[in-house]
Amino acid sequence: MMEKITVLGAGSWGTALAAVLAENGHDSLLWTRRKEQSDEINTHHTNRQYLPGTELPSNLQATHSLVEATEHSSVIVIGVPTKAIREVCKELNSLLKKRVLLIHISKGIEPDSLKRISEIIREEISEERIRDLVVLSGPSHAEEVVLKHPTTVTAACENLEMAEFVQDLFMNQYLRVYTNSDVIGVEIGGALKNVIGLAAGIVDGLGYGDNAKAALITRGLAEISRLGVKMGAQPLTFSGLTGLGDLIATCTSVHSRNWKAGSLLGKGHSLEEALEMVGMVVEGVRTTKAAQQLSLEYDVPMPITQALYKVLFEGQHPKDAVDKLMLRMKKQEMEELFF
Amino acid sequence: MMEKITVLGAGSWGTALAAVLAENGHDSLLWTRRKEQSDEINTHHTNRQYLPGTELPSNLQATHSLVEATEHSSVIVIGVPTKAIREVCKELNSLLKKRVLLIHISKGIEPDSLKRISEIIREEISEERIRDLVVLSGPSHAEEVVLKHPTTVTAACENLEMAEFVQDLFMNQYLRVYTNSDVIGVEIGGALKNVIGLAAGIVDGLGYGDNAKAALITRGLAEISRLGVKMGAQPLTFSGLTGLGDLIATCTSVHSRNWKAGSLLGKGHSLEEALEMVGMVVEGVRTTKAAQQLSLEYDVPMPITQALYKVLFEGQHPKDAVDKLMLRMKKQEMEELFF
Repeated sequence: MMEKITVLGAGSWGTALAAVLAENGHDSLLWTRRKEQSDEINTHHTNRQYLPGTELPSNLQATHSLVEATEHSSVIVIGVPTKAIREVCKELNSLLKKRVLLIHISKGIEPDSLKRISEIIREEISEERIRDLVVLSGPSHAEEVVLKHPTTVTAACENLEMAEFVQDLFMNQYLRVYTNSDVIGVEIGGALKNVIGLAAGIVDGLGYGDNAKAALITRGLAEISRLGVKMGAQPLTFSGLTGLGDLIATCTSVHSRNWKAGSLLGKGHSLEEALEMVGMVVEGVRTTKAAQQLSLEYDVPMPITQALYKVLFEGQHPKDAVDKLMLRMKKQEMEELFF
Repeated sequence: MMEKITVLGAGSWGTALAAVLAENGHDSLLWTRRKEQSDEINTHHTNRQYLPGTELPSNLQATHSLVEATEHSSVIVIGVPTKAIREVCKELNSLLKKRVLLIHISKGIEPDSLKRISEIIREEISEERIRDLVVLSGPSHAEEVVLKHPTTVTAACENLEMAEFVQDLFMNQYLRVYTNSDVIGVEIGGALKNVIGLAAGIVDGLGYGDNAKAALITRGLAEISRLGVKMGAQPLTFSGLTGLGDLIATCTSVHSRNWKAGSLLGKGHSLEEALEMVGMVVEGVRTTKAAQQLSLEYDVPMPITQALYKVLFEGQHPKDAVDKLMLRMKKQEMEELFF
C-alpha cells in the first residue's frame, strides 16, 4: 500500500532511504533545515554534497519546513545526526498533532546520559504522540544502496507486527529487510561498531595489515557483545546483520567515515585534521566517550574502547595504543574473548 | 628452551612458520620434496615462488630428504596441502622411529570420507608414534607474518598443556598465540571459511559491494557455526580467532587465494582459468564439495555452500546463484541466521 512518509535529515543515509521509499511508490518527503539543499533536490534531483553523482527519483520531494514535513505523514523517519536528535525531537513534539509511527536510522549513544537513540526520542516526544518506534539498522553504506547493490538491513521493534510494517515499506529487489524484536541489541551493535571502526582505521593507517585487523574485529565484537548482554540485549543479535554484519561493513569499507577518520589518525594526523578531512559527522568519536563511560558503569572490560579513548581524548600516540592492545596476553582464547 | 623442529611443506605458510621458529631461536628445518627449492632456501635464503621479496633467516635450514627431516626432531609441523596429507603421513609413519609431537597447520575437509585434518593424520600415523597432535589456526596471511605485522593465532589441543607448549614455541612480539581445547571447532572454522571466502570473492567480482559482502560473511559464519555445533564443536569457538577472525581475513584480504579465485569467477572466468591464474592451491574448491556433503550428512541447511557448489560443480552462473541467495527471504532475522 502506498504510504505518505517523511524522512528528517538529508545526509547520505536519510537521502538514500527517502529515495528507496519514493522508488517503492510511496509519497516520500525529505526534510532538511537548509533551503538551498531542498531546492537542489526538488529542482535538480541531486544531493551533491552527500551523494555526489547520484540522480534521485523525480517523485522524491524535499522541504525545508519542519511544519510541512510533520503534517505530510503519519510515518516519520528520524535520520538526523545523533547530536541533533534531542533538538529535532523537541521541535517535532511541539508540531505533532497526531500519533505517528517513528522509525529511527541513527547510530550512537549519548555521552554522560548514556541513553540509546530510542531512549532519547522517547524522552523528547510525548508518549501519546508515538504510535510505536522502530529501529532500522544494518550493513548499509548509502553510496551502495543508491547504486541498487544488494543490501540487507534489520527493522527492530518489540512489537514485531510494527517491524513487519516497516519491513514492507522499505523492502524491494535490492534492499532486503529482516525483522528482530531485540531493540537494545540492535541499537548497541549499531552504535558501538563505530568505535571499532575507528580503531580498525587506525590499524590500517599504521600499515599493520589484514591479520591484525581481523583480530581487532574479532575482539571488538566480543567486547560489544559483553557490554550489550549486560545492558539487556540478546547475545545472538550480535552475530546478526546489525552486530557482526554492520561491524564488518564499517571496518572494511572505504565508504566508512569512521574507518576513514581512524586511518587518518593512524597516518599521523590529529583528530581535528582527520575530522576536517572526512568532512561528515564521525559518530564514533562521541560514541567512544559514551562507550568508555558504559564500560565503567556496567563494569565490563572493553580494552579496544579504552585504548581508543586514550588516543582520542588523552593524546596517546595511536601506535603505542595499538601495540599495547596487540600485546595484551591471556593464556586461553576463550578467557580473552568472553570474560 | 631451544627445540629441534621440522616443518613439512615449503608453501607460503609452512615457510613463514619455519622462519618464525628459526627467529625464535629454535633449530628449524624445512622440508620440501623439490631439491631446487631446498637448495634455494639454503643458498639464497629465499623462497621466491611462495614468498617473493622475503629474506628468510640465515639459520633456517631446508632439506629435500624426508628421512633427514624426520630424524631431525621430535616436533613435526605438517604444512603440506590438504590433498597431500594422507600420502605424506603414510611416508612419515614408515620413517618415524620415536614418538613425536605433531602440529598441523592445514585447513580443509576431505571430500567423501568427510574427515577433518587431525582425523586423517591419526588414520595414517600409528597411535604409538604420536605424542600428541596440536592444530595451529587463525587469521594469518603468511605474507604479513614475514613482514612481522602483528598476527594472532590459536593452538588447539584437547590437552591444554600441549597447546601451551606449542604456544611457547611460536610466540613472539609479532605473533601472538592463544590456546583453545576445542579441536573440532578450530578445524571446522578453518576449513569452511575458505568456502565463504570463495563466495565473498564472487560477490566482489560481480561488483556487488561491501553491504552485500558484509551480509554474506554474517550468514556464512552462521552456517559454519550451525554445522560445527552439530559436529560437536563449542559454539563460542566460531566467534573467536579461528572462526570469525579467520573468516574476515579470508573474505576481505587481497592476500587470500580463495577470495582471489572467487573474484575471478565473479568476473566471468571459468573455474579452470581462475585456478590457473591464482597459481597456488585453492583449498576452498575441494572443501566446498566436502561441506555440501556434510550439510546433507548432518541435515544442516547451508545455503551459501549449496549456492557455491552449484557454481563450481554444476555450471550455474555466479550471478544467478548470488542473486538467488540474496533474495532468499525469511521473516525474522534470527530464524534466517540460526535455524
